[in-house]
Amino acid sequence: MSRRNFLVQSGAMGGALASLAAPALAQTGNPEIRWRVASSYPRSLTGIFSAMEMVAKRVGELTGGKFNITVHPAGELVPPLGVLDAVQKGTVEAGHSASYFYIGKDPAFGFHTAMPFGLGLRAQNAWLYEGGGQALIDEFLAPYDVTVMAVGNTGAQMAGWYRKEIKSVADLKGLKFRIGGLGGMVLAKLGVVPQQLAAGDLYPALEKGVIDAAEFVGPLDDEKLGLQKVAKYYYYPGWWEGSATLGLFVHLKALNALPALYQTALRTATAEANQWLTMKYDNENPQALRRLVAGGALLRAFPKEVTQAAFGAANELYAEMAEKSAPFKKIHAHWAKFRSEQVMWQQLCDLPFDNLMSALLRGKG
Amino acid sequence: MSRRNFLVQSGAMGGALASLAAPALAQTGNPEIRWRVASSYPRSLTGIFSAMEMVAKRVGELTGGKFNITVHPAGELVPPLGVLDAVQKGTVEAGHSASYFYIGKDPAFGFHTAMPFGLGLRAQNAWLYEGGGQALIDEFLAPYDVTVMAVGNTGAQMAGWYRKEIKSVADLKGLKFRIGGLGGMVLAKLGVVPQQLAAGDLYPALEKGVIDAAEFVGPLDDEKLGLQKVAKYYYYPGWWEGSATLGLFVHLKALNALPALYQTALRTATAEANQWLTMKYDNENPQALRRLVAGGALLRAFPKEVTQAAFGAANELYAEMAEKSAPFKKIHAHWAKFRSEQVMWQQLCDLPFDNLMSALLRGKG
Repeated sequence: MSRRNFLVQSGAMGGALASLAAPALAQTGNPEIRWRVASSYPRSLTGIFSAMEMVAKRVGELTGGKFNITVHPAGELVPPLGVLDAVQKGTVEAGHSASYFYIGKDPAFGFHTAMPFGLGLRAQNAWLYEGGGQALIDEFLAPYDVTVMAVGNTGAQMAGWYRKEIKSVADLKGLKFRIGGLGGMVLAKLGVVPQQLAAGDLYPALEKGVIDAAEFVGPLDDEKLGLQKVAKYYYYPGWWEGSATLGLFVHLKALNALPALYQTALRTATAEANQWLTMKYDNENPQALRRLVAGGALLRAFPKEVTQAAFGAANELYAEMAEKSAPFKKIHAHWAKFRSEQVMWQQLCDLPFDNLMSALLRGKG
Repeated sequence: MSRRNFLVQSGAMGGALASLAAPALAQTGNPEIRWRVASSYPRSLTGIFSAMEMVAKRVGELTGGKFNITVHPAGELVPPLGVLDAVQKGTVEAGHSASYFYIGKDPAFGFHTAMPFGLGLRAQNAWLYEGGGQALIDEFLAPYDVTVMAVGNTGAQMAGWYRKEIKSVADLKGLKFRIGGLGGMVLAKLGVVPQQLAAGDLYPALEKGVIDAAEFVGPLDDEKLGLQKVAKYYYYPGWWEGSATLGLFVHLKALNALPALYQTALRTATAEANQWLTMKYDNENPQALRRLVAGGALLRAFPKEVTQAAFGAANELYAEMAEKSAPFKKIHAHWAKFRSEQVMWQQLCDLPFDNLMSALLRGKG
């Protein structure tokens, strides 16, 4: 595979850009810049992948087509979980991924995406954009020569598909559950045996009983996998992803080499996409959920005993991680305080309103 | 006051634009266009007013300063509630307001902002941008020669400040409550006497007992009025504004005369601002609420009896409005179905997660 490396070419590129930096040329002399974005996601994820394509399209429109971003689905340029490395090395200028895929490098990578018992969508957005979260994450990412921009949030995810009901913590012992990252690490403390499988392998693995349960995203994406046919219990909520932010990793050198207009276009377009993905899911998930239930899915909530035990396990895990990673410790302290404030506020305003509407409309049948 | 009218000048402007319409000139020959935006809001509303200023700033950045939007606070160009008229008449190209201020013209103006027992923030955004709400509203607005773009959502608002506790529906009889619009109309059915006062008049009116209660927005904005000193009971949630969308009314002729780049810049910037305002409030409301409680505010939830009676009154009101307004009837049918779907979905995912976090963190003390 012949891959150019923009860092190798950056001497020439930097020179060309320097001559175009005068503000007077912002509209008349915009340089042609091409970026390749490697995604961790396939095109079949119509929400997540489309949000990144929306960014590319919008940036093109806002720059008269001069800033040209192409989005390459998982595996086309680099392996799905090799996206961050590819950005860091300069194989591509940017990568569409989820920060928490990289907790093996440092658990602090979890915060940009989702943490078990973490921030709901509103709180996550507020923390990243307004509450100081982005600055802390950028400080942590600086040694990797990258930044990460939010490009979509799924909202709270479902907790996945189970062949048997989970009635107590005891039912978690030995459960072969396809779940990755921090959620898997929390559940492992309660006896779960986390499994790693590609999305396409979930159906046969559940059908044959190779695994007992699998989580993915929510109704819209889960429906495509057909899991309700082989694991009928559909649990909620996915407390390991109370919201999940998709991320656009960008090499700092590539970002800083952009004219101001292109940087603004990129930041504005990612903000638009971040809001759009949630609306896309919220609009389409209810219909997908209805189809899943009509197709045999049985909805179940985790018992309180299970979520309380998991919350204890998560706090234990965070204490361990803070011992091992200074960035994790620093970000976690800020994040945990923010979480408390947000929950306090939310339970006085949006949460009572939402609970009220739920009660009133249920009452109407 | 000397006011130009862009409609009067549109012959000349239209001709100038026609000669610049070729795509090849999108970057090299962007025309200079100036818009004046009249706002219904004062600068002191640092969230709401700043969101509109953010749009103006971003549009300028994205067009090399060629599309110049100036935002004029309430009263500077036209009276605060005369904004829609000013846009419709062409006194200004666009107006920053809230659609529900204009329900006197037609109750269908309520849907873009907030309806009692309406859509929470997530559902409101999904309905407007993805669920078909914007198209219905645009169809309704076409005879007014305007469209309206979302430029910020406050999230669920607080229910305001009361000199006495509300323990039953009987306590609403004769209550002189400063509340406008549809919320006031619902409460009037339960005996409330709605009052109209400017924000600056609320403190003396409550202090002197001229009114018994007043609602405004939420902690961040309410704090500036000092109402906790004269009406200590702070109720939640504001079920008449489970979320509230600010709107940028734009004259269709002015919008359609913009080059494609400027239209895209405007739409992208408004989407960014729509998300930003919520983050701004969510980040700052908790701290403001803490200060209010420290200053003597006593938090209270409406009793179930009161909210159920109000829900009945709202449904009665909507049936009456549907009789009188065909646009209301059409939009309400779509909106009510969307609301049911959203509440069904939400109560299976985000709501259980948010309730779980509330219970777990309260348990921690």
